[in-house]
Amino acid sequence: MSLYIPKDVSYREKVSESFSRQEVMKTIGVSIVSIELGQVELVFKHDTKLTQQHGFIHAGIITTVLDSACGYAAFSLMPEDSSVLTIEFKTNLLSPAMGEKYLAVGRVKKPGKTITVCDGELFAFLDDQKKLIATMTCTLMTLSNKERGIKG
Amino acid sequence: MSLYIPKDVSYREKVSESFSRQEVMKTIGVSIVSIELGQVELVFKHDTKLTQQHGFIHAGIITTVLDSACGYAAFSLMPEDSSVLTIEFKTNLLSPAMGEKYLAVGRVKKPGKTITVCDGELFAFLDDQKKLIATMTCTLMTLSNKERGIKG
Amino acid sequence: MSLYIPKDVSYREKVSESFSRQEVMKTIGVSIVSIELGQVELVFKHDTKLTQQHGFIHAGIITTVLDSACGYAAFSLMPEDSSVLTIEFKTNLLSPAMGEKYLAVGRVKKPGKTITVCDGELFAFLDDQKKLIATMTCTLMTLSNKERGIKG
Amino acid sequence: MSLYIPKDVSYREKVSESFSRQEVMKTIGVSIVSIELGQVELVFKHDTKLTQQHGFIHAGIITTVLDSACGYAAFSLMPEDSSVLTIEFKTNLLSPAMGEKYLAVGRVKKPGKTITVCDGELFAFLDDQKKLIATMTCTLMTLSNKERGIKG
Repeated sequence: MSLYIPKDVSYREKVSESFSRQEVMKTIGVSIVSIELGQVELVFKHDTKLTQQHGFIHAGIITTVLDSACGYAAFSLMPEDSSVLTIEFKTNLLSPAMGEKYLAVGRVKKPGKTITVCDGELFAFLDDQKKLIATMTCTLMTLSNKERGIKG
Repeated sequence: MSLYIPKDVSYREKVSESFSRQEVMKTIGVSIVSIELGQVELVFKHDTKLTQQHGFIHAGIITTVLDSACGYAAFSLMPEDSSVLTIEFKTNLLSPAMGEKYLAVGRVKKPGKTITVCDGELFAFLDDQKKLIATMTCTLMTLSNKERGIKG
Repeated sequence: MSLYIPKDVSYREKVSESFSRQEVMKTIGVSIVSIELGQVELVFKHDTKLTQQHGFIHAGIITTVLDSACGYAAFSLMPEDSSVLTIEFKTNLLSPAMGEKYLAVGRVKKPGKTITVCDGELFAFLDDQKKLIATMTCTLMTLSNKERGIKG
Repeated sequence: MSLYIPKDVSYREKVSESFSRQEVMKTIGVSIVSIELGQVELVFKHDTKLTQQHGFIHAGIITTVLDSACGYAAFSLMPEDSSVLTIEFKTNLLSPAMGEKYLAVGRVKKPGKTITVCDGELFAFLDDQKKLIATMTCTLMTLSNKERGIKG
């Protein structure tokens, strides 16, 4: 059960639709696990084409998926005809990203009319073990589409 | 002329060699512009496969290239037989990333035996205009390869 | 019940003793609420001498108390004859700090031999209401006192 | 010569006036060195009452002064009848803060209608040597006073 009352009852559709327009998600191979009010989970598989020099997933790719998870967690609480913009984020890398697949969880910590703050966690799965790999704090902004003339 | 005296005279070779093992750099299409002691510049072209929902380069991809630029700037000052590990970074997104190509500049702000702090800037080039798109602060660690049994 | 096995059984005494040497804690009026393995809570009262231009507690003072809470949470897990050093932190300000008193909770997110990452939360209490005011992510380092010739 | 055209010609007066209402600046002993469009410098002397357990200035006090320097650098570029709010900041601690006095420099990196990003640097002065101690990245917001019914 969610803590939030939706400002946009089509929050699942709008998140899915916007996600499907993020071409980079296809490049990384990310798919949606769940969309709840204020929480979005994304998953992707290990792929050599995403690695750094030691064969781990590059910290920036982890950040890419965490930013989308946090962004869509924030977007799920925003009113119709608005879009979401990342102002800044910080990622802490806790362990090398070496798994079979990776789960990114983005959660709203503090929603706001203009500014929303989210927390993200990335987990690696290896041999049925789940391990915390990275954390994110992400600050996002709600923009009115009318002012910008764009799609959310 | 550099401010630094190299601890490893083969710093250019070791940075190039490590960079060539970052598979994700090939996926994004990044190449090295320059390697100086404490400063590395990387470049990549706009590519639809790297975009978010509005057609801009995804903030996480910007971060990926900035992290590599900062990481190799730090690595250029490290002694032989050491490797570089990113502890954390923060990215501020200043303007939408819409250009023909993008330049990432990573610079050592404070080198240290264990901890090195770098600053990064990402610029977009469009119609001969250069625009600052994002900034990074990145904290990195020097690891001894002997302790780890790995390649830098 | 704690998740951790103490590396230093005198962890409460060493945290208290180090805290008592932080002169700035007296200036702000901070006292210890609790010291557990990997978690420290600190409290202070509203005081006009700590305010910014609108009468709220200055974000930097909030950060000072959160940094000490996180630092001592990390320190509680460190071995004897070591000291704790803050490498960096990030604070998000979620609501204006206007209360009768403030509680800072520092918690270890990921302990490590060299690097420890902590999360902090600052709450304001006003009319029996508890409100989240600020969050922190803090990266800390364990230093050996033998190498440094100092007290923890 | 400044890069900026003032939106409020009384920017020096409004910064000074707001600074004088920050009670915590008196507690720390901070005074204004200079106010330029997009750049503010503040200074304070070493004082035992601001120290952590090893006798250095506490990282949070450094952050307090850097946040005010960055905040007023941003405020100097804002229109009349607006006030400045810190959304978040990150501080990297580069060297122990042990000096006779400390200079905080806050500089606007990217001004904006709603969001402004600033960089800060804190220097220690000891025996006529100037040393970089800490850096900050700070994200701030412009608020309309009409909407809030308050003073800037």
